[in-house]
Amino acid sequence: MTGTVHGVGLGPGDPELMSVRADRLVRGARNVAFFRKAGRRGQARGIVEGMLAPGAREIPMEYPVTTEIPLGDPRYNQLLSAFYAECTERLRALVQAGEDVVVLCEGDPFFYGSFMHLYTRLSGVVPVSVVPAITGMSAAWTATGAPVTWGDDVLCVLMGTLPEEELARRMADADALVVMKIGRNIDKIRRALATAGRFDAAWLVEYASMGGQSVMRLSEAGEKVTPYFSIIVVHGQGRRP
Amino acid sequence: MTGTVHGVGLGPGDPELMSVRADRLVRGARNVAFFRKAGRRGQARGIVEGMLAPGAREIPMEYPVTTEIPLGDPRYNQLLSAFYAECTERLRALVQAGEDVVVLCEGDPFFYGSFMHLYTRLSGVVPVSVVPAITGMSAAWTATGAPVTWGDDVLCVLMGTLPEEELARRMADADALVVMKIGRNIDKIRRALATAGRFDAAWLVEYASMGGQSVMRLSEAGEKVTPYFSIIVVHGQGRRP
Repeated sequence: MTGTVHGVGLGPGDPELMSVRADRLVRGARNVAFFRKAGRRGQARGIVEGMLAPGAREIPMEYPVTTEIPLGDPRYNQLLSAFYAECTERLRALVQAGEDVVVLCEGDPFFYGSFMHLYTRLSGVVPVSVVPAITGMSAAWTATGAPVTWGDDVLCVLMGTLPEEELARRMADADALVVMKIGRNIDKIRRALATAGRFDAAWLVEYASMGGQSVMRLSEAGEKVTPYFSIIVVHGQGRRP
Repeated sequence: MTGTVHGVGLGPGDPELMSVRADRLVRGARNVAFFRKAGRRGQARGIVEGMLAPGAREIPMEYPVTTEIPLGDPRYNQLLSAFYAECTERLRALVQAGEDVVVLCEGDPFFYGSFMHLYTRLSGVVPVSVVPAITGMSAAWTATGAPVTWGDDVLCVLMGTLPEEELARRMADADALVVMKIGRNIDKIRRALATAGRFDAAWLVEYASMGGQSVMRLSEAGEKVTPYFSIIVVHGQGRRP
């Protein structure tokens, strides 16, 4: 009589880019859980607006506020760890009472997602299934109108939270690049791209596949601060017959 | 009166992992083009079996046989270049006669795909649209039952066709790894993983998301030759609250 937790990847944002399976699971769900920032609707919840069945139970999971705590501070991990434990407990109780729960996941659940913090805690306790999805980076390179990798190109995916020196070293060493988690790291990322000689080849994609999508060369983006879910793409130039 | 070429990513192989948009375009297509090896049904065509509209025109594009020609030989590029030019011409003629054509693409069209060789030739000549898709690597890491990247993990995507020394260096330098184009490169890839100290952490996924999917540690895969579209995954171990 135990139910299942479905970690359902929703893809980059356009509901038509959800998989057929994700679409079916979301429309049929009796219980729909999703992460969101306190006081916000939630990015994942926004993607499925208009798709939920009448009477579906919504289970928002609100991140604790961590903006004042440095990433390296043990309190940061403790706070998040307690939060994920509490979310796990809510879902476990529902599923052990026989309910299926769909957890809405932006992008692909196993690729830098929050769902994996539930997944590792629920695995082996209750049945969990995961539906992969189109990544935000796929939507971003598609939006640039140019293939990202050719032939033997090496693709490197980097988080803007890494130290500048490491970013620059890795940017110089790969053929194709994707940089995510940009937000407040944008100036550091610009400098690292310049050091690596890749700045002029970099594209900035905001809101890939969503309303308000914008695509421009990073060099033409000026000084404006970019949203946290912007993505930078540098295309590979490998073998092409 | 000109039509449009739709480069439609079909995802990793399971038809339910096609996007809602891809599903709609494929089912509604009057003209369906796809690559295949001579004498084979074609991997992309196989994914949409049973989905095509009655009377849909099928346009197989058969790769020239290149197995006897080394990658570096100029004849290799010449042969493929002529082939892509010929395919482009067929599609251009149809589209300029007012027809829409759906080109079936395994995986994500702009990520190491064959479609981009048509895309670059057709762009600016006729309207071309591209539908991104779930990559084979997303299906592979999902199949392993463990998240591939956490926190600030660096993901590196490598083709097994690269030189052994370069593979080993890059394998040692990244947190999470994906290796594709395995086939006859498997022994070289094993050695490179061992040199990099990553062999014991490597997973081999065959036919990800398809019938016949298999997931095992590479160290337990024995000596059997793996299919060309197998994928090796090494998971990152980054920050996790």
